[in-house]
Amino acid sequence: MNQDYIKPDNWSIIEEGFDANRVESSESLFSIGNGAMGQRANFEEHYSGPTFQGSYIAGVYYPDKTRVGWWKNGYPEYFAKVLNAPNWIGTNVSVNGEQLDLFTCKKVNNFKRELNMQEGWLSRSFTAILRNDIAIKVETKRFLSLDSDELGAIQYNVTPINNDAEIVFQPYLDSGITNKDTNWDDKFWDTIKVSHENHQAFIQAKTMKTDFYTCTFMESNVFINGKSVLIEPNIKADATYASFSYQYQVKQGETYTIHKYGGYTVDRDYDKSQLVPMAKKVLKEAVKVGFEKLLEKQKRAWSAIWERADITIQGDVKAQQGIRFNIFQLNQTYLGKDSRLNIGPKGFTGEKYGGSTYWDTEAYCIPFYMATKDEKVAKSLLEYRYNHLGKAIENAEKLGFKNGAALFPMVTMNGEECHNEWEITFEEIHRNGAISFAIYNYYRYTGDYSYIKDKGLEVLIGIARFWQQRAAFSKDKNKYVILGVTGPNEYENNVNNNWYTNYLAQWCINYALENINKIETDFPEDFKRIMDKVKLFETELKTWKAVADNMYFPYSETHQVYLQQDGFLDKELVTVTDLETSHRPINQKWSWDRILRSPYIKQADVLQGFYFFEDEFSNEDLERHFDFYEPFTVHESSLSPCVHSIQAAKLDRMEQAYTFYLRTSRLDLDDYNHEVHEGLHITSMAGTWMSIVEGFGGMRVKYNTLSFTPKIPKQWKAYSFKVNFRNHIVKVNVCQNKTDFELEGETALQILVNDELVTIEPNSLVTV
Amino acid sequence: MNQDYIKPDNWSIIEEGFDANRVESSESLFSIGNGAMGQRANFEEHYSGPTFQGSYIAGVYYPDKTRVGWWKNGYPEYFAKVLNAPNWIGTNVSVNGEQLDLFTCKKVNNFKRELNMQEGWLSRSFTAILRNDIAIKVETKRFLSLDSDELGAIQYNVTPINNDAEIVFQPYLDSGITNKDTNWDDKFWDTIKVSHENHQAFIQAKTMKTDFYTCTFMESNVFINGKSVLIEPNIKADATYASFSYQYQVKQGETYTIHKYGGYTVDRDYDKSQLVPMAKKVLKEAVKVGFEKLLEKQKRAWSAIWERADITIQGDVKAQQGIRFNIFQLNQTYLGKDSRLNIGPKGFTGEKYGGSTYWDTEAYCIPFYMATKDEKVAKSLLEYRYNHLGKAIENAEKLGFKNGAALFPMVTMNGEECHNEWEITFEEIHRNGAISFAIYNYYRYTGDYSYIKDKGLEVLIGIARFWQQRAAFSKDKNKYVILGVTGPNEYENNVNNNWYTNYLAQWCINYALENINKIETDFPEDFKRIMDKVKLFETELKTWKAVADNMYFPYSETHQVYLQQDGFLDKELVTVTDLETSHRPINQKWSWDRILRSPYIKQADVLQGFYFFEDEFSNEDLERHFDFYEPFTVHESSLSPCVHSIQAAKLDRMEQAYTFYLRTSRLDLDDYNHEVHEGLHITSMAGTWMSIVEGFGGMRVKYNTLSFTPKIPKQWKAYSFKVNFRNHIVKVNVCQNKTDFELEGETALQILVNDELVTIEPNSLVTV
Repeated sequence: MNQDYIKPDNWSIIEEGFDANRVESSESLFSIGNGAMGQRANFEEHYSGPTFQGSYIAGVYYPDKTRVGWWKNGYPEYFAKVLNAPNWIGTNVSVNGEQLDLFTCKKVNNFKRELNMQEGWLSRSFTAILRNDIAIKVETKRFLSLDSDELGAIQYNVTPINNDAEIVFQPYLDSGITNKDTNWDDKFWDTIKVSHENHQAFIQAKTMKTDFYTCTFMESNVFINGKSVLIEPNIKADATYASFSYQYQVKQGETYTIHKYGGYTVDRDYDKSQLVPMAKKVLKEAVKVGFEKLLEKQKRAWSAIWERADITIQGDVKAQQGIRFNIFQLNQTYLGKDSRLNIGPKGFTGEKYGGSTYWDTEAYCIPFYMATKDEKVAKSLLEYRYNHLGKAIENAEKLGFKNGAALFPMVTMNGEECHNEWEITFEEIHRNGAISFAIYNYYRYTGDYSYIKDKGLEVLIGIARFWQQRAAFSKDKNKYVILGVTGPNEYENNVNNNWYTNYLAQWCINYALENINKIETDFPEDFKRIMDKVKLFETELKTWKAVADNMYFPYSETHQVYLQQDGFLDKELVTVTDLETSHRPINQKWSWDRILRSPYIKQADVLQGFYFFEDEFSNEDLERHFDFYEPFTVHESSLSPCVHSIQAAKLDRMEQAYTFYLRTSRLDLDDYNHEVHEGLHITSMAGTWMSIVEGFGGMRVKYNTLSFTPKIPKQWKAYSFKVNFRNHIVKVNVCQNKTDFELEGETALQILVNDELVTIEPNSLVTV
Repeated sequence: MNQDYIKPDNWSIIEEGFDANRVESSESLFSIGNGAMGQRANFEEHYSGPTFQGSYIAGVYYPDKTRVGWWKNGYPEYFAKVLNAPNWIGTNVSVNGEQLDLFTCKKVNNFKRELNMQEGWLSRSFTAILRNDIAIKVETKRFLSLDSDELGAIQYNVTPINNDAEIVFQPYLDSGITNKDTNWDDKFWDTIKVSHENHQAFIQAKTMKTDFYTCTFMESNVFINGKSVLIEPNIKADATYASFSYQYQVKQGETYTIHKYGGYTVDRDYDKSQLVPMAKKVLKEAVKVGFEKLLEKQKRAWSAIWERADITIQGDVKAQQGIRFNIFQLNQTYLGKDSRLNIGPKGFTGEKYGGSTYWDTEAYCIPFYMATKDEKVAKSLLEYRYNHLGKAIENAEKLGFKNGAALFPMVTMNGEECHNEWEITFEEIHRNGAISFAIYNYYRYTGDYSYIKDKGLEVLIGIARFWQQRAAFSKDKNKYVILGVTGPNEYENNVNNNWYTNYLAQWCINYALENINKIETDFPEDFKRIMDKVKLFETELKTWKAVADNMYFPYSETHQVYLQQDGFLDKELVTVTDLETSHRPINQKWSWDRILRSPYIKQADVLQGFYFFEDEFSNEDLERHFDFYEPFTVHESSLSPCVHSIQAAKLDRMEQAYTFYLRTSRLDLDDYNHEVHEGLHITSMAGTWMSIVEGFGGMRVKYNTLSFTPKIPKQWKAYSFKVNFRNHIVKVNVCQNKTDFELEGETALQILVNDELVTIEPNSLVTV
């Protein structure tokens, strides 16, 4: 199911021609969101073909308690399912009594779908010949407002082109929806009340078990040739549904239009008694402003985002389209407005994986948000974890750890673990290290130590305690070992001495020790406050040091590489190029045991460590490890190609770096892993951004300032990006033979370019 | 929840005094069965306290398709749940309008429960003072007929002792039952029809999804002081229920009795249209014979079983009670009448684990059935696997194996895998070896080669092919390795080079090769038939030999022991005696990851291999391995203590052997693992039998004849057992200073006693 139908375009995702087999993939690719809610690109009108319906509200989930197999002690209480929310976009269209349905009508011509990323809207146009032989032209446009978390707007135009026709728009709300990810068509919503008033309707519904209260709402206006017409609608309502039918006898060539406004108010933001009144307020304001003006505001809001976050690529439209798609989707998913939210791996585009927060946030997303937003956005993501520290300590206690050791959950909605496979939940503990690393990374990039001294040190201590207790002393090796883990390469489970995990554990302990010392010296009052709270004494610190100083790292003298884990060399080391393509992707073709005992790597694992801690290794080290592991890597994790792209660029292998770049940036657009119909890979999109900025641009923080070693793939004329570094906005424009630097603002900035100091003055160009 | 309330008794399990906290445990311990059906010892009358209701029909299950987590490719289609079947024992009792309910009545005196193992019945007696102050004496007796698979019978006596009273017996059928092992109170039965005629009632019901059709039936007669009375019952029936109420004004001191006959007819045995007529036939016959005579027949049938299978122990009533309990429960579970059935780990006493067939059958149960029944019973268990060979090959194909490689399922009902944890289903592949071993063991014991040449060789070849393909060549070790397995010790998952598995794999290949050669030489026609079918050529045999000849076995020079798996010595080797008792059983106190990285062993793993292949190892080898591993063994698998008992006896450590013997034989009676309320550990009961016969008696087959090295624990005066060896019934009676051998039948037998040849003549005593 490789994608090849998306038209290359600098600013839009475009599909031309209707193909029912592509509908579910396109529903993912054309998804829209505003950080508070989002939805797959389902059609407004009835569609009887295969479709994956999805509209999602940030933070709203269902705790699935299903048990199978032989239940193991200590399992999490539930698996958090991402929930399809009540449908507010639905607008059935009938023409002379026949329902418009692209799956069953006689013919669909000139079908075009466009996701305009510059302006933030989704459109569709086509002509359809119905079974009753009426031909109609349809044009729709839809967006979720960046200005109002609760609001979405739809414009739907129908023009009969071969006859007059009686056309009915039937906008509706429906809470009788289902989830894809359900065992036996379980229902997840209790509808409390369906009501309507004038042209407005409301469905108050709450999620089962979790009791998230929501109000789904709508109001519609209709127009003929752009002129408002007042039609008394025919109203239908039942226990989970409300619709208004606006019937009009439309003349051939006339355009009948509906503007539908809708969305959700939720009890995270308002008292549940206020959900309907707030919905009325949102609708009143929307109707007053009107569709066109709302759309103008939408364009302005997206323009402001692009002003800071855009990356341009000249001479390679597919690469340009790819990076903008990634930046666009990240901003649709998370805007940093609400510190209770986070960045789910599928954003608002599908249900798979459940939960909302993974280590992806710390390892991949934080660099993107640090550089393209104000630093408070990244800080708020760090605070999210601080707010969950108590639960992370409880979580570790459930697994037998003591004394304030913290294990942050692998997947969470609210700080509790909400995934339930032992090899992930209990063993993929490297996530804990990514959280410490993000604290380090934030301070390194922003220079803002306030988070560490106010809050972060407690997190670092909880995590260090975990690693000290989780390591075990092997008499046989006379070293500390870490047994029974799953590394970032999830194609291994329950391995011993995963190099990445061991390295990270050692680093976390040392970094915690370093900051304890720093705060003791520089912030004695904070030191006292924190030590009083965490009760950390010298004897315990000695046990930390013993572990960090004597950590075991598996190494092969023959290959001169660190081994991914103990026993890696026992595998039959057949490279990916020698694996028949019919066996790939292996996660769809092979049983799990076969994957586990194969040498194939889902994502960079040792290389992930080299990426985090590159200063600890020489380029020769990197090259040897890259050449050893990459041939076994199938990149079936979305998080894999970006790290490889960055490292290939570092090794001056620009052709390889470019290939990996295309793979990461067009992972979903070109559907490399044959799974885009399930939704998009949101968090790895930040990795795509890194492959340009850190990979090609070579951006680092060195000697406490910004540093670049710009490179450019030969396929490109030029590329540019902007970063916010400590409230300096630096624009970098890399051409084949030069790089320009520009600085916004008022104070000059010294940066490093290819290890030479360069001073850039505000609003003047520096060329290197 | 340690048991201490079961009274020591040679032939019965006895509980005295009523304690609601013990009800669920006693429901397990007093279970009854007849090989075709079985039930927990639930009360007949209403009971409002905590209870685990269970009545099970052999071969009837439900396929749970529930998915959770991130579904992995290749998972089995379903998890087979053991199903609670419609209730036929239910008989409510009311006294002057008040329902008898032991949980809520004012007082229960002289409560006694007895499971008479010699005669095969369960009884209960007590006096109860109801809240209306009527005191009644109750006596019940119940059994499931060994003579009629479909029939059970109940006698229920009530005597008012302080007043006259109006007593109502309300026998009923109920298909509105629930399962313990359900996610959300799902229903598993569709009731098709509830009907009644005269004093008979029938519920026709089928299982959902699997469509097993059953008829549950009953008929009752009532008596006053033993004299039949005709009462026109008051009939109630609804969609899932039918009851008859027999009301009688009973005088103080009179005994009001009901005889209820009931059970199931099932479509495994009869066309579904015949289920009701067959039920009528069963009822007609039962009523004609009557309760007392049926009970006489029951006693005779059990007497015949004991005649062959009994083990006596003098001077140790708890040990005597333990072994009989084990022999009794095995015979309640499986009698070898139907080759489509097998021996579920919980038999008919609970739902846990699902499925009906595990490697327990081959590794533990076959020796018991070989020695205590005619050899056709064991052969039928071997044929069960032959009949599933096609499905085992399909199963292996799903996991990527080719060319007729067979992987028998870990858990099955009908040859398909029906368990769904990857670390079990995909990785606990040693089960395949136990199946080859059982073929070897059957031939060794019975001398009957017909199974191997007719059918078994195909099984051996399919299994050998699996092992050859499953092994991988490690360049690093220059040996074949087996990666990613779970051994019998399920407290390790996904380990490399589990010694037991590697050893078994090598053995299976060699044993298949040996039999291919033997059949080629001795049975050329069979050879041709089989080779034409399996297409096995010389080149493939070379690949087998390469694997078997170059198999890797992890070994520690320091400890001079084979290592359970690669990396075992990296664990913190704290022995069980140094583990706080509050942490045990670890499977109830620790999270799974903690168990996995601990050194603790659920059951013998290396020692299991030493048990199977003891001739390959010296006593010194055994001693060293026993002393290395036993201190880390928590015996939380029911299959563990028996092997340790046998090996301790072999090492002349009789005190230790005796301790393990008590643990295996009274595992459930004394509830060592705090879980008896979930049901009994049926399959390991065969291991208990082995610990006497093979452990203390030292029975082996050597030089193609029976061999003994009798030992006796100092706590015992004497013990005796009987075995059927190649149609000779040998009785062995071991005293502290001598052993007597007796032979039934007509021809003499040469045996080995302490490695000396001894001839025993029929019906004359030989003392050694």
